[in-house]
Amino acid sequence: MSRAHRVVIVGGGFGGLCAARALRRAPVEVTLVDRRNHHLFQPLLYQVATGGLSPANIASPLRALLKRQRNARVLLAEVVDLDLEARQLALDGDERLAYDSLVVAAGAGKSYFGRREWQPLAPGLKSLEDATAIRRRLLLAFERAEREADEARRRRLLTFVVIGGGPTGVELAGAMAEVAFRTLPGELRRVRRGEARVILVEAGERLLPAFVPPLSAAAELGLERLGVDVRCGWPVADLSPGRLHLRSAEDGREAVLETANVFWAAGVAPSPLGRRLAEQSGARCDRAGRVIVGPDCSVPGRPEVFVVGDLAHFAHGLAAPLPGLAPVAMQQGRYVARRIRDRLRRRSTPAFRYVDKGAMATIGRSLAVAEIGRFRFAGFFAWLTWLFVHLMYLTEFENRVLVLIQWGWNYVTRNRSARLITEPAADPGAEAAGRTFP
Amino acid sequence: MSRAHRVVIVGGGFGGLCAARALRRAPVEVTLVDRRNHHLFQPLLYQVATGGLSPANIASPLRALLKRQRNARVLLAEVVDLDLEARQLALDGDERLAYDSLVVAAGAGKSYFGRREWQPLAPGLKSLEDATAIRRRLLLAFERAEREADEARRRRLLTFVVIGGGPTGVELAGAMAEVAFRTLPGELRRVRRGEARVILVEAGERLLPAFVPPLSAAAELGLERLGVDVRCGWPVADLSPGRLHLRSAEDGREAVLETANVFWAAGVAPSPLGRRLAEQSGARCDRAGRVIVGPDCSVPGRPEVFVVGDLAHFAHGLAAPLPGLAPVAMQQGRYVARRIRDRLRRRSTPAFRYVDKGAMATIGRSLAVAEIGRFRFAGFFAWLTWLFVHLMYLTEFENRVLVLIQWGWNYVTRNRSARLITEPAADPGAEAAGRTFP
Repeated sequence: MSRAHRVVIVGGGFGGLCAARALRRAPVEVTLVDRRNHHLFQPLLYQVATGGLSPANIASPLRALLKRQRNARVLLAEVVDLDLEARQLALDGDERLAYDSLVVAAGAGKSYFGRREWQPLAPGLKSLEDATAIRRRLLLAFERAEREADEARRRRLLTFVVIGGGPTGVELAGAMAEVAFRTLPGELRRVRRGEARVILVEAGERLLPAFVPPLSAAAELGLERLGVDVRCGWPVADLSPGRLHLRSAEDGREAVLETANVFWAAGVAPSPLGRRLAEQSGARCDRAGRVIVGPDCSVPGRPEVFVVGDLAHFAHGLAAPLPGLAPVAMQQGRYVARRIRDRLRRRSTPAFRYVDKGAMATIGRSLAVAEIGRFRFAGFFAWLTWLFVHLMYLTEFENRVLVLIQWGWNYVTRNRSARLITEPAADPGAEAAGRTFP
Repeated sequence: MSRAHRVVIVGGGFGGLCAARALRRAPVEVTLVDRRNHHLFQPLLYQVATGGLSPANIASPLRALLKRQRNARVLLAEVVDLDLEARQLALDGDERLAYDSLVVAAGAGKSYFGRREWQPLAPGLKSLEDATAIRRRLLLAFERAEREADEARRRRLLTFVVIGGGPTGVELAGAMAEVAFRTLPGELRRVRRGEARVILVEAGERLLPAFVPPLSAAAELGLERLGVDVRCGWPVADLSPGRLHLRSAEDGREAVLETANVFWAAGVAPSPLGRRLAEQSGARCDRAGRVIVGPDCSVPGRPEVFVVGDLAHFAHGLAAPLPGLAPVAMQQGRYVARRIRDRLRRRSTPAFRYVDKGAMATIGRSLAVAEIGRFRFAGFFAWLTWLFVHLMYLTEFENRVLVLIQWGWNYVTRNRSARLITEPAADPGAEAAGRTFP
C-alpha cells in the first residue's frame, strides 16, 4: 500500500480507546472521533453526582491519553451521518472523513421509553454535565428546605426518588442516602434528622436483576440499612412536576409520591448511529437498537466495519447477548484492533470470545455485591474487591493515584468536599453584582 | 438581653467568613448569607481556568466550614434589598431577615466600564462558572483549530488576548502561555508549534501598577520569556466578534487584533449593595462604588452596620485607600467581629489598623514577583514564597493537603489533568444520543 491504512474510531469510551491503544504499533493511521474531549470513567459518575469526587477525577482528556501514540490523532467532532458505500463519515461543519476500516463505539445515551417530556423532570446520569446537574439538584433541595418554614413543602423538597434498580440506581441511591443521612444533617440547622427520605423505585420484582437473587436480597437489605426505602414491582405510571405516579405491577393499584427530586437510572438507548448503520448495511438491530454483529464484531456484509461496546449486540454461541459492561467493550475494542492488524497481514483471526470478569455493584459505603465466575459474595470484602478492580480500571489509561488518595480521605473523614452548587447557565457570575437588584 | 444578639453577615468570602469565625465564642447568633454555597479561593481561579486545578480544589462548602460552629447558620440566599431603619434585609422569595449588627462583605463583580455588550465577547474571571467557561473557550479554540484547514481562520482561533495587566491578567496570561506552548503542542497534530499567540494588553504604561516599577519590568520580562506578547499603553477602543480594537494611549493610533478569544481581567465593580447602603445611611461612596467607612469599618451614622473587604473604602491615616486583597478583607472581618464583641461588653475598641502582608503575583511556572514590606524580589524564590503563602491561606479554613499534592504532581509532570470541556447548557448529555442526527 502506498499510504497507510486509515482506521477511524467513533467514540472515546472504553471500547474505542482500547481499540486505538491496541493499534499502537500497527502500520495504520488512527483517527479517534468523539463529541467530547475526554474519556469518561462512567462507573464512578454517581460519585460526582453526590459530591464525593470531582469531574476531573474520573475523566481524562483524550488528547493526553493518546499524546504519545504518534499514529493516532483525536478529532473533537460530531458524527452526523455515514456513507458505507463511499467509506466516509460526515462530521459537523460539512467535514468528510474517509476510512479504510471503521470502528463504531458510540455507546448509549439515556432512554425515557419514549417519554421525552420526562427528561427535564428526572435527570439521568450519563455525562459529567448530568452528574453536576444532579449534584446541583440534590444540594439545592437541602438549601431550599433549610429556608422553608412549611412542613409539607419541606417534606417534598427532602424526598429523593431514584428510578431504576440496576447498578447505577443502586449506587446512586446508596450515595444519596449517605449525603442525606450522614454528611448534611450536622450542617443544617432547621432541617431535622429523619426529615429527608431516599426512595429507590424498581419496576421489576428485585434489584440488580443481572445478579443472582441472593445478591439482590443483600443489596436491598444493605440499602435499607443505609435508610433507603426500596420499592420493587412499581413501574412508573406518570411523572409531573412535584409528583411521581407509580402503578403496582402486581395488582395495578396506584401510588403517588410527592417529591421535588426524581432521578432517572432506568434505561439506556444505544446511539442512533446503530440504526443508521443497519439501514445502509442490511444488518439487523435488536429491539433496543443495538447492531447485531458477526462473530468478529463486524457488520454483516461490511467486513471493514466493526461495532463494539454498548452499541453492539453480540450473542454468538451465547445464551444471552453480552451485557453493556466496560470489560466487554474493552475486550471487543482490543479484538477488532487485532482483527484489523491480522487482515493487513493477510492473516485470519479466531472469532471473538468474551472472558467473563464478573460483575459488581456497590451499595453505599463499604458494602458491595460481586459475582465473579462461580463466586458470589456480598459485604465489605466485596466492596474492597470492587474498589480494587475499579481503581485498576481507572489507572488503566492514566495514573490516578490522586483519586485513590482523595477517595481514602473522603472515606476516613466522611467528607464530601466536592459538594459545589455551580450554575448550569453559561456565565452567571457575569452579572453577579448586577443580579443583586433585579 | 433576653434573646441573643443577632449578627447577619452578607457574603462568604474572606471578609465574611473571617468575621463569622471570629464570633465563634461570642454570645451571638450568626447568620451568614451568600448567593453561593461555597467559599471561593479567588486567587487561584486562573488555575481552574487553565485546567491546572479542579473547582473543588479551590472552593469549600460554607456549611462544611461552619459545621462545628453551633452559633452560626448558613443561608443560601440573594440579598435583594436592605432597610437600615427597620434593621432588616430583604432576601429572594420575600423572606425578611432581622439583625442587630450587620456585616456587609458582598465583595465585587466584574466591570466592563459601562460596556456591558462586551461581556459575552470577553468573559471575565470572578466565579467558578467564569473559570470553567474560560477553560472551555481556551480548549475549544485549539480543538477547532485542529480541524481548521484555512490558515487565517486557524490563526484567529489560536490568538488569545487577555485584557488587563493586573495580577489576574498577568497570572492568566502566564498560565495560558503554558497551556498553549507547553501542554498542548505535543497533543495536536495539525496545529504546529508557534502557531498560537498569547497577548496581554494593558491600558497603562506598565504591568502590575500596584508594584514598584522594577517588579513590573521583571513581570514583563518573565512573561515574554514564556512567549507572551505584552502590550502596555494600549487601552481597548472597541470589541466586536473576532476583532479587538486598541488605541494607543501615546499617539492615539489604532491597532486591530484578529482574535476569536478575548478574556477580561481589567476591572472590578463593587456590589451594588454598597450604593444602596449609602442611599439609606447618608454614607458616601467613592467613584468605583465602594462605601467610605469610618475608622472602625462602620457606616457613618450607623454604628451597627459594617462594611469590609472589596466593598469597603478604608483610608483613615493612609495615603491611599486599602487595596482589594484577601488579607485586608480577613483582617477587617476579624476586626468587626471583635468590635461587635467589645460593644456587647460595653468596651471600646481601637480603630482598625491594617498590618501589611505585602503583595505577590505569579508569572507562570516557577516565577513570581513579591513586595513584602521593604523587601522586593522576583524569581523562583518569590514563586516559592507565593506558593507557600497561598497554600497557607488555602489551608486556613480547611485541610487542603490534596491541592498541594495535585499541584506538586502537575508541576513535576507538567500535566494539566483538569482540562475538561464541559458544556454550559443545563443538561446536554440528555439528548446526546439524539443529537447525532439533528
